[in-house]
Amino acid sequence: MIDFEKLGGMVPVIAQDDATGDVLMLAYMNREAFDETLRTGRVCYFSRSRNRLWRKGEESGHVQELKSMYFDCDADTILVKVNQIGGAACHEGYRSCFFRRIDGEQVTVMGERVFDPKQVYKK
Amino acid sequence: MIDFEKLGGMVPVIAQDDATGDVLMLAYMNREAFDETLRTGRVCYFSRSRNRLWRKGEESGHVQELKSMYFDCDADTILVKVNQIGGAACHEGYRSCFFRRIDGEQVTVMGERVFDPKQVYKK
Repeated sequence: MIDFEKLGGMVPVIAQDDATGDVLMLAYMNREAFDETLRTGRVCYFSRSRNRLWRKGEESGHVQELKSMYFDCDADTILVKVNQIGGAACHEGYRSCFFRRIDGEQVTVMGERVFDPKQVYKK
Repeated sequence: MIDFEKLGGMVPVIAQDDATGDVLMLAYMNREAFDETLRTGRVCYFSRSRNRLWRKGEESGHVQELKSMYFDCDADTILVKVNQIGGAACHEGYRSCFFRRIDGEQVTVMGERVFDPKQVYKK
């Protein structure tokens, strides 16, 4: 169904807030993460930096409950609509990872932090 | 500002309908496409299959007018909010490329075609 081979065994996955429509983040799934997500109803990605399955929220508790899943015309990208527990998808504490807007040369931070990363990750 | 090197000179770009919030498609930009998009206000991607700049709508006329642009916490993914001329982003004639929903083993086509690809692309 999904073409995992185009990008070396992974496909990009867009996570969208099911209630608000906000685009929350982009991450990747391999076949194992894809299967686990469908089986459990909780979104599991494949972390490229850690080179292992990444059960979103495994550290922070901010899991993503799967509401629905779509794939695109080329079968090489997935869209998940999710209920984001904790209200923030971004490890920096923002609702969405896309919290910076580009206007020409200028960058503007949009939105406010929902949590303080230092408190959540204890690092 | 954007890390184009992580994926071999390209970054994934999510296009979202500025009015409805629908996620329309995912494509890629290199630095040249990124610069052109900001300069012209029309979304320009880099086509991996054609290995050249892809001015969205160059064949179909269904261009994407840039409303705003965001980038994510890792600076390796872009989100563009667009006004999709013609009402459909997908070359198959659907509003969104994500027109197929996955429910376990089952795939359901969601939504209706806005245009007939045979008429638009004359192929």
